[in-house]
Amino acid sequence: MPGKLAAFHEFRSRMNEKLLSKGNLQLKRFFNLDSQVYTDGALPGRTKELMGLVASAVLRCDDCITYHMIQCAEAGVSDEEFFETFNVILIVGGSITIPHIRRAVETLEELRAGQSERSEAVPTVTKRKGKQPKQGKGR
Amino acid sequence: MPGKLAAFHEFRSRMNEKLLSKGNLQLKRFFNLDSQVYTDGALPGRTKELMGLVASAVLRCDDCITYHMIQCAEAGVSDEEFFETFNVILIVGGSITIPHIRRAVETLEELRAGQSERSEAVPTVTKRKGKQPKQGKGR
Amino acid sequence: MPGKLAAFHEFRSRMNEKLLSKGNLQLKRFFNLDSQVYTDGALPGRTKELMGLVASAVLRCDDCITYHMIQCAEAGVSDEEFFETFNVILIVGGSITIPHIRRAVETLEELRAGQSERSEAVPTVTKRKGKQPKQGKGR
Amino acid sequence: MPGKLAAFHEFRSRMNEKLLSKGNLQLKRFFNLDSQVYTDGALPGRTKELMGLVASAVLRCDDCITYHMIQCAEAGVSDEEFFETFNVILIVGGSITIPHIRRAVETLEELRAGQSERSEAVPTVTKRKGKQPKQGKGR
Amino acid sequence: MPGKLAAFHEFRSRMNEKLLSKGNLQLKRFFNLDSQVYTDGALPGRTKELMGLVASAVLRCDDCITYHMIQCAEAGVSDEEFFETFNVILIVGGSITIPHIRRAVETLEELRAGQSERSEAVPTVTKRKGKQPKQGKGR
Amino acid sequence: MPGKLAAFHEFRSRMNEKLLSKGNLQLKRFFNLDSQVYTDGALPGRTKELMGLVASAVLRCDDCITYHMIQCAEAGVSDEEFFETFNVILIVGGSITIPHIRRAVETLEELRAGQSERSEAVPTVTKRKGKQPKQGKGR
Repeated sequence: MPGKLAAFHEFRSRMNEKLLSKGNLQLKRFFNLDSQVYTDGALPGRTKELMGLVASAVLRCDDCITYHMIQCAEAGVSDEEFFETFNVILIVGGSITIPHIRRAVETLEELRAGQSERSEAVPTVTKRKGKQPKQGKGR
Repeated sequence: MPGKLAAFHEFRSRMNEKLLSKGNLQLKRFFNLDSQVYTDGALPGRTKELMGLVASAVLRCDDCITYHMIQCAEAGVSDEEFFETFNVILIVGGSITIPHIRRAVETLEELRAGQSERSEAVPTVTKRKGKQPKQGKGR
Repeated sequence: MPGKLAAFHEFRSRMNEKLLSKGNLQLKRFFNLDSQVYTDGALPGRTKELMGLVASAVLRCDDCITYHMIQCAEAGVSDEEFFETFNVILIVGGSITIPHIRRAVETLEELRAGQSERSEAVPTVTKRKGKQPKQGKGR
Repeated sequence: MPGKLAAFHEFRSRMNEKLLSKGNLQLKRFFNLDSQVYTDGALPGRTKELMGLVASAVLRCDDCITYHMIQCAEAGVSDEEFFETFNVILIVGGSITIPHIRRAVETLEELRAGQSERSEAVPTVTKRKGKQPKQGKGR
Repeated sequence: MPGKLAAFHEFRSRMNEKLLSKGNLQLKRFFNLDSQVYTDGALPGRTKELMGLVASAVLRCDDCITYHMIQCAEAGVSDEEFFETFNVILIVGGSITIPHIRRAVETLEELRAGQSERSEAVPTVTKRKGKQPKQGKGR
Repeated sequence: MPGKLAAFHEFRSRMNEKLLSKGNLQLKRFFNLDSQVYTDGALPGRTKELMGLVASAVLRCDDCITYHMIQCAEAGVSDEEFFETFNVILIVGGSITIPHIRRAVETLEELRAGQSERSEAVPTVTKRKGKQPKQGKGR
């Protein structure tokens, strides 16, 4: 997996562990709730991850954008769907979101490179196992 | 149709008209682009309207929330789907979004009241004609 | 109790009730967590309410400002303390917060009027009973 | 002068007076500094008022927008200039600013109505005296 | 040209190219519109670039700040004008903008170093040719 | 003192010096006012620094968060108090603040490492002298 995403995963996991070991009960509850929100319900989890991406982008948080793009890619969101999502972000949030969209396009490239690497490395039947480890709690 | 929504429609239509008659070419282009973004594509228009609702709510603009809720209700979004959307808004945007969600719940009631009124007033077959007039350009 | 605050209480209670009766489990959990955060702990609840006021003001949500000012006034925050809090809000958040501070000063007047009314109406010993009903969940 | 602007002036003046009479030294210093920033310097005050309008609009504060539009109109900003300013606001800030721009267009109408009223009422030579009273400190 | 600006240009050009080659029609339209807004009109392009800088700074996007500072420097904005613009940013946006202003001052130094380098390297008459290549679409 | 904090101090000092030497009178006044706000008054300076931390975090500025955490640690804020402050930030500001809280936890570790280093290096009585040099003006 390429560099930027690997660094994101490493820092996120290391600090979440610290947060949850040092954090109080309320912090843990927030993290639990955060992971429950994106599960399948009346709306599919996939749609909610796309919503999470839109929210992250108009609020302009690169790490949150990266996190939800990973989840979306896992859920099979296509390039065309990502770019139409970028349209919604751009039109609602304005040109101030452009630098974040540029970085999101870079992230998309890394994600696709990682996905094609894995799909080449594993036989088709067991491909699901090649799936990235579940992100765990706490975006 | 109850009061808050009617007032929203009236002011929005009247001012959009002024905006577009007095506004320059670039303003018109922005409004055109704004209405193109939410049409069906790789993602259904319905999903994009839900994204528009999420973006409006985390950026905390009541009029934009009302606008996208009208579009979502027209597209058949159910109460359960609205409430799961509120969950995403709440968890990403925090408690600062609660007053907006309270007002969104009030808007939802008005929308449902308007919808049931219309469905009672018109025979089932022609129900589609009972549909609210298309919102036009410019959210 | 003067008009603006009464209207705030009425709408807030009525809509929170609807939110919590129609809302799903996750929405309820968020509201529960929201009320737990401001209880006494390593930091006194009073300090956390002041923090809530600062956060609400720099994020510029009038209803959230009103809510935390009610809680702060209940917790005995003085006028001088409110105004020093406004200083922090102004310097961090800039002049864009001024209209919110103007409205906060109006809210403060209503709160003090309500407090002096109650303190006159009830004998000193039972004054605590004169206390405003607990706000309940969900700011 | 039409209603919305008159109400804005009345509330703003009344609360600023309270703010500055009850407020501490630091609050007064902030208000003083706020009024110094928009005076002529390397950049004309007029340009800075337009900047204030842009900042207020992308941060989406209606009262601040109204305040800077009054100052801009006083400084002779034309309708064409206002609408090009709205273009910058729209493109940087996105469609989330549209409801604020709608209200700004309404404010512009009231401002123009007030200006033509005054220019009719007073002889041309003394027209400057017809000028709206200086806004004073504290936006 | 010093390092930070060069890196900004390189990444921006590379990713904009990808964005526009992979992006859909609506994304391209937004980028086109974005570049049209800052041309001369009722207001000079220079004033609009300064507005773009103010909007970028109060919304706190470093890349957007850098982009508009490059355009402003190209348009002949002086140090005194930049610093008065920073005053407007600071007073409207508050101390939360200070870290962005610190980085903007660093950018200004790099811009001036680049400008004096070019003005030394080329004969006065052809100085305009020494001008930085036009930024192209998409901030 | 570990790397991230040292780099923060170095850049901040160097650029503030430039800002204040090149900046105009109004910029200096803003910086002066900024440092006055956090002194002891009706509210202790410590509480105001905590408020500054909350404001910085919900507005999501890493440098401002770092600055106020340094001041808070100097004022003796405990880990438990920091984590309860993070709770307020999380609940008001939502999950969009999580990446900032992760970085804040990293900053806290560096601060504690620096504090224990200094407390080991200096005899208890003179410990106060081991105190970090006063931050000076301009966050």
